[in-house]
Amino acid sequence: MTERAVLGIDVGGTGIKAALTDADGTVLGRWREATPSGDTSGALTRDIVLGLVAIASRVAAPAAVGVVVPGVVDEEHGVCIHAVNLGWRDLAFPELLRPALDVPLAFGQDVRAGALAEAVSGAAADVTGTIAFVPVGTGLASALVIDGVPFAGGGWAGEIGQRVIQDGPHRGLRVEELASAGGIARRAGARDAKTVADAVASGDTAAIAIWNDAVDALAEALAGITVVAAPTAIVIGGGLALAGAALFEPLEHGLRERLDVVRVPQLLPARHGDEAATVGAGILARRLVTAR
Amino acid sequence: MTERAVLGIDVGGTGIKAALTDADGTVLGRWREATPSGDTSGALTRDIVLGLVAIASRVAAPAAVGVVVPGVVDEEHGVCIHAVNLGWRDLAFPELLRPALDVPLAFGQDVRAGALAEAVSGAAADVTGTIAFVPVGTGLASALVIDGVPFAGGGWAGEIGQRVIQDGPHRGLRVEELASAGGIARRAGARDAKTVADAVASGDTAAIAIWNDAVDALAEALAGITVVAAPTAIVIGGGLALAGAALFEPLEHGLRERLDVVRVPQLLPARHGDEAATVGAGILARRLVTAR
Repeated sequence: MTERAVLGIDVGGTGIKAALTDADGTVLGRWREATPSGDTSGALTRDIVLGLVAIASRVAAPAAVGVVVPGVVDEEHGVCIHAVNLGWRDLAFPELLRPALDVPLAFGQDVRAGALAEAVSGAAADVTGTIAFVPVGTGLASALVIDGVPFAGGGWAGEIGQRVIQDGPHRGLRVEELASAGGIARRAGARDAKTVADAVASGDTAAIAIWNDAVDALAEALAGITVVAAPTAIVIGGGLALAGAALFEPLEHGLRERLDVVRVPQLLPARHGDEAATVGAGILARRLVTAR
Repeated sequence: MTERAVLGIDVGGTGIKAALTDADGTVLGRWREATPSGDTSGALTRDIVLGLVAIASRVAAPAAVGVVVPGVVDEEHGVCIHAVNLGWRDLAFPELLRPALDVPLAFGQDVRAGALAEAVSGAAADVTGTIAFVPVGTGLASALVIDGVPFAGGGWAGEIGQRVIQDGPHRGLRVEELASAGGIARRAGARDAKTVADAVASGDTAAIAIWNDAVDALAEALAGITVVAAPTAIVIGGGLALAGAALFEPLEHGLRERLDVVRVPQLLPARHGDEAATVGAGILARRLVTAR
């Protein structure tokens, strides 16, 4: 059986990324375009996605295309319910693409696609059982991969960053306002979380307090994932995962002290970096053309 | 096609309950025996279970038997990893039963079986999507039913009561020490949670504080389930669900204030009462003999 290449496309808030891979996962080409602003109908985004398909096809005609988008996504019905970054509401984006494509189209959500990528060919490739993926970037979300399939919950699963804190000094804040790279930077009035991490390393008291708040809120969120879904591993991605031991050591400690008699999942740094969703989109496409 | 009866058996900490049902769910008979104490090998429990099978068979020979037990249960490998109430550790209970049974045997965990019962024929029978079941009894646990199948997570899913609180006046307590009927009674020094609920109704300040702590901790746990797994409905069972509006009204309020832009699940009182696990065991048995 000859398996042709597949094209994975990740429509993000600022860029649209595509990767063409052959059957053994070798990347045949990568492309990137800017996300059009104010494209509430999805028409401009459709044109860019179709343009990427055309460009990639000059290298190798894809046997299937996978497209993932951010926000609340109902994969089952092919609808982006709400994507703040794109300005989309109840947009059946796959329906805009299908008439112009002569190959099968897979549609998904970026965090769940990233989770799939980390579970299949990333940090958790050798781990059995349920895998959780938690990208800690401008915001905070999560996704579960159960028996090799991303769990969507009708589109609403994984909104761990949107929970509103009820007690203590952070009452009224959403979890991601504390526990995301974006939240850390904003609270510190810094350019990015890396700047804050550097200040932590040099002993800056205010930076340390903000960092500890983030670790605590993140540990609380991971404990919540663990007691509900019992993943064997949690893959931490996004910008904050680059902090390495400064994040992972206190985070693991915080997770352990929150779990009494419960099995504690492995914490693993993501391997696919900011390519995770693109790789995952490619896996979704591959599954359309390969016997499972 | 003639479908014979099935027998569901729930091995609990104090009693072992059996229900024989025919293909349309009609209960042909119910039986109950006391749970033997100190039966760490499971041999005495096996004899009682086999005795119940023999007794039920006089009414109608079951086509399959379903047995569920409490604690951390790995259904996939047929092992009870840990059941505090029974004194069991790493006990392959189904292996004790199979040699003496000439019909198929299903094995499961009580909370997940109860969840299945509420999802299939109970409070959430008419609800589509993922269903969560949260029995609030002597302890606190949860289970998810995804696409009609209880989610086990290798046995460790749903331990929401075991999370250790890190902040505030209850630091160091496990969630179920606040948010369970058992926890409420213990904190109030009362016989049971019903007594505390009556004291709340009569304006007892100490009872009200304990009740509010329970509602808050439970709302926090339900918010945790929601952001991770996005159930469309959460079925509340166990003794505390009998409190009705005194529980459900503040609980729904507490859940809404914790979820910002997230879809809020319906809260439903359980319908099967303390028969839920027995009914669920019967459904597991039925699925062994019926095309899905």
